[in-house]
Amino acid sequence: MIDVKSISTHCTRTEFVGTTVLDTIGLVISGIDDTLLKEMNVGMKYHALGLFSSRTGAAGQITAIDDAVKATNTEILSIEFPRDTKGWGGHGNYIVIGGNDVSDVRHAIELGLELTKKNAGELYISESGHLEFTYSASAGAALQKAFHAVPGEAFGFMAGSPAAIGLVMADTAMKASAVNITCYMTPSIGTSHSNEVILGISGDASAVKAAVLEARQVGLELLIGMGSYPEIPGTPYL
Amino acid sequence: MIDVKSISTHCTRTEFVGTTVLDTIGLVISGIDDTLLKEMNVGMKYHALGLFSSRTGAAGQITAIDDAVKATNTEILSIEFPRDTKGWGGHGNYIVIGGNDVSDVRHAIELGLELTKKNAGELYISESGHLEFTYSASAGAALQKAFHAVPGEAFGFMAGSPAAIGLVMADTAMKASAVNITCYMTPSIGTSHSNEVILGISGDASAVKAAVLEARQVGLELLIGMGSYPEIPGTPYL
Amino acid sequence: MIDVKSISTHCTRTEFVGTTVLDTIGLVISGIDDTLLKEMNVGMKYHALGLFSSRTGAAGQITAIDDAVKATNTEILSIEFPRDTKGWGGHGNYIVIGGNDVSDVRHAIELGLELTKKNAGELYISESGHLEFTYSASAGAALQKAFHAVPGEAFGFMAGSPAAIGLVMADTAMKASAVNITCYMTPSIGTSHSNEVILGISGDASAVKAAVLEARQVGLELLIGMGSYPEIPGTPYL
Repeated sequence: MIDVKSISTHCTRTEFVGTTVLDTIGLVISGIDDTLLKEMNVGMKYHALGLFSSRTGAAGQITAIDDAVKATNTEILSIEFPRDTKGWGGHGNYIVIGGNDVSDVRHAIELGLELTKKNAGELYISESGHLEFTYSASAGAALQKAFHAVPGEAFGFMAGSPAAIGLVMADTAMKASAVNITCYMTPSIGTSHSNEVILGISGDASAVKAAVLEARQVGLELLIGMGSYPEIPGTPYL
Repeated sequence: MIDVKSISTHCTRTEFVGTTVLDTIGLVISGIDDTLLKEMNVGMKYHALGLFSSRTGAAGQITAIDDAVKATNTEILSIEFPRDTKGWGGHGNYIVIGGNDVSDVRHAIELGLELTKKNAGELYISESGHLEFTYSASAGAALQKAFHAVPGEAFGFMAGSPAAIGLVMADTAMKASAVNITCYMTPSIGTSHSNEVILGISGDASAVKAAVLEARQVGLELLIGMGSYPEIPGTPYL
Repeated sequence: MIDVKSISTHCTRTEFVGTTVLDTIGLVISGIDDTLLKEMNVGMKYHALGLFSSRTGAAGQITAIDDAVKATNTEILSIEFPRDTKGWGGHGNYIVIGGNDVSDVRHAIELGLELTKKNAGELYISESGHLEFTYSASAGAALQKAFHAVPGEAFGFMAGSPAAIGLVMADTAMKASAVNITCYMTPSIGTSHSNEVILGISGDASAVKAAVLEARQVGLELLIGMGSYPEIPGTPYL
């Protein structure tokens, strides 16, 4: 019978890159099995894969991987949104990237882990619900794939749960400045049935940032109005 | 850096109407942004919107809004079922209503919050699963939209989790009296993958009520047979 | 007003067969209502139904029912995967079987409850995620319906959460021995948006078993590498 306690918490597998907040794990596969790669439906170009996966949070991690892919010779292959958050009303994430060189892929995943820790500063989780925000001065391939961000343009993201809070944030953002909607998601539209309204916006950098900040202010007022203060798994940076 | 503790739990935003049990929040938007309204796909008739949203529970809140809309000059625009319940096996809800006059909309949301507190008396949540029941003597637009209730007729609702309990409740209800099925939902059919079997029934008022009460009895016996007593976030009223 | 404490935890309903680990309940309906049976869309052949339903776990219970159906004069009618696990990242299950004789159906459900307890020994749930494994020397109708197992052939199953762990397990299994993929599932493909990658494999018994054991080893190393040891709701048997 297997004794799980015989296994160390200091993982030495070559696949293991690291972990960070929000039950996030980063892994690499240096030469994926061909039959499995076909099933994955991500093309057959890359056999060195980077895997990035969290129980809680999506936009912060996708923004982290967006920057990581821009900084390395790697490519986004797939982004999926499990309905998770460890009992809360949102998503987790499951991201696959590819590269020709496993060291590039490993480096991208390392960067993703680092940046996820920073981005977790704009996740607010209270007893009643949660809010998530991200901002990128110049969106890349991950934000485009996940939220239809316009590559090279500023991108802002806001999600609120319970969903009604998200809609008021979205309305506030749209009234705050002249921005364009890149994606609009609700429990039945585009999400994996999460209890959120999500808005992605693009446009002029200062307009996008101002819209996100106004949305954050109203979102926090409403969430805190539900009776408890949120925990923040990082340091707010916006 | 934002200091969330600088924000009061007594929300003074004009959008804020109130909160109640089951992490329910009621909000209004007096003049929704036009671009956002188009994305919402709820028609362009109303710019005064009422938002109603909970982490836990659906039928009780939908029945509350059903009565609230009947009592005010407002209209149901959309009802969505996030897969939530804060780690339990069911749904939350996200409801949007509209009106020409923001005070009508606000009043409807206020009524919805009050009635949700009452309806929460027929939600039973144990360590193992949950049961939810509602009954309306005369179904309106919300119950029609969500569960295909027949407007003006009596409507009964039952949901049981784990799902198997829901099916025995449904079978019991159908054998209890001559009622018609308005909706039948399972983890793969009609739900957002909740762990429930749900039955909506219509017909003669006394037949519908008798069917719901028989279903409740068997449901409670089975749920309690799993080893623990349910908590009730209100006072049973059926 | 109903007093739930007046109901005993020792359920005496004829529908009640029993309960076991993972919030699993087994029930029978000796003569299902005809109108309800039509709604269920499982054919009209059987009116004696067995119901099997858990909050947590799917493969262990489906393998249990697979063996139970093989050992009795019963048939699998439907298998559904609610997105549940009581706040964790996976599924529960909801299974309906049918038989001509209610005592056969009851016996199958009894067997399913017993075997579920045994199979729960290969479910590993930590603070960060979970792993699930099953192995059958000869797959039957339930494993075929749920995971496209080849009837009569050996079948192995592995699921890992967060999802990235599942993909490394799948890759490890494919490289371990010559096996065929019967199903490949991810948060967006085939699951009910669970935070898992799932692989089902068939082939030669020793090859399938070896592949599952290698996947288990890497899965445990990665899961434990996330910082905490898993709880096991049974005794590992593979």
